[in-house]
Amino acid sequence: MSGWVVVAGLGPGAADLVTPEVQAALAEATDVVGYIPYVARIAPRPGLVLHPSDNRVELQRARFALDLAADGRRVVVVSSGDPGVFAMASALFEALEGYDPAPDIRILPGITAMLAASARIGAPLGHDFCAINLSDNLKPWALIERRLRLAAEADFAMALYNPRSRSRPEGFARALEILRDTCGPGRLISFARAVSTPDESIRTVTLAEARPDMADMRTVVILGNGATRRVGAWVYTPRSAP
Amino acid sequence: MSGWVVVAGLGPGAADLVTPEVQAALAEATDVVGYIPYVARIAPRPGLVLHPSDNRVELQRARFALDLAADGRRVVVVSSGDPGVFAMASALFEALEGYDPAPDIRILPGITAMLAASARIGAPLGHDFCAINLSDNLKPWALIERRLRLAAEADFAMALYNPRSRSRPEGFARALEILRDTCGPGRLISFARAVSTPDESIRTVTLAEARPDMADMRTVVILGNGATRRVGAWVYTPRSAP
Repeated sequence: MSGWVVVAGLGPGAADLVTPEVQAALAEATDVVGYIPYVARIAPRPGLVLHPSDNRVELQRARFALDLAADGRRVVVVSSGDPGVFAMASALFEALEGYDPAPDIRILPGITAMLAASARIGAPLGHDFCAINLSDNLKPWALIERRLRLAAEADFAMALYNPRSRSRPEGFARALEILRDTCGPGRLISFARAVSTPDESIRTVTLAEARPDMADMRTVVILGNGATRRVGAWVYTPRSAP
Repeated sequence: MSGWVVVAGLGPGAADLVTPEVQAALAEATDVVGYIPYVARIAPRPGLVLHPSDNRVELQRARFALDLAADGRRVVVVSSGDPGVFAMASALFEALEGYDPAPDIRILPGITAMLAASARIGAPLGHDFCAINLSDNLKPWALIERRLRLAAEADFAMALYNPRSRSRPEGFARALEILRDTCGPGRLISFARAVSTPDESIRTVTLAEARPDMADMRTVVILGNGATRRVGAWVYTPRSAP
């Protein structure tokens, strides 16, 4: 039997946000590869080998998955959220450069954090928006600042992934300063932590009230555009723009 | 029994991309409300009333759903993709303004078109990106042009929703001109039509080769950023930026 690699999105955390397509791939797998907390979400069963690995070894992990498939294994690389949004799919294709012969590959989409967060908040991404990864592990911080400024100028709503980590606590404080400068103090900003898990918390404040410690590694931050407003307990961005 | 409104994302088309959470809501519903082709995806059953309605009546449809819930009905408003991305969630909150008392509301996320398309293409959204609705029904065309130019300047990958409709065939041609001007002729652009349905087609070309008639109403268009490249049959955007 010939091997394959599937890169699958497990969604934000809850089992009922995992698509049937991903469930079916997991049921056929011989091996599951991924970052420790994501592999921990997979139920063990006879015939399934779990290969948890640490953060920041994405390229090695991708090569390992390709090698397993070359040996005839059926491998699911698990990502949180969607594998194509700041997750393992790009790393797999980077590893595929020069890899010969390429195994059978499929990418299976999932509910990425900003969509799950948006649903809990209301509809803050209901108009044009952008998604920016605030981690400067793989790009210069100056590029992040430039994108924040241009996104504000375009009046995009923004989903900010990886806002804060222990290794760079100061980046998100700087991002909030830039957003206050460019969007004004009254703009609504939502902090969605651990959405769809027992630890979930959702909080919306103005940029004037926003503090860096409102975000941690499990938070996605959603900034409204200039028209984003509250209705009751909800926050939404109208469909129309003047 | 008290009524409720759920706004649910059905994903791009395939049944195995509908989340179990959405399936459970549909199983409890007394009424399904939505645009004709989306309601057509719901299997009829005794006790379930289907209310298909035409396009461009989103606000009336939202009010109708709120009224049904006020009468004690359990209503699912169905959207294609994700309800919070250019779909019914914002319309529901617009209708909720001044509506008293507000019924119980939940928004259930779904696989939005750009994620399903991205998975079939490879990982074109693997770095910072934006999503722009090219329809000028609810915003001036000048704002769309401005956002395309700023997004190009930020070197975002772009997901372009509603690229083309019968009522404004010229808009997408103009968008392609702007993108060629700002991103250059070699930039990769993918046309993903009817993803996950029997009519699916995926095509990637350069901006120099792109023609307006490569997109129709069932197409989502994904433009790479300056680093997006091919590996084998796949297209991906590397995780790193210089």
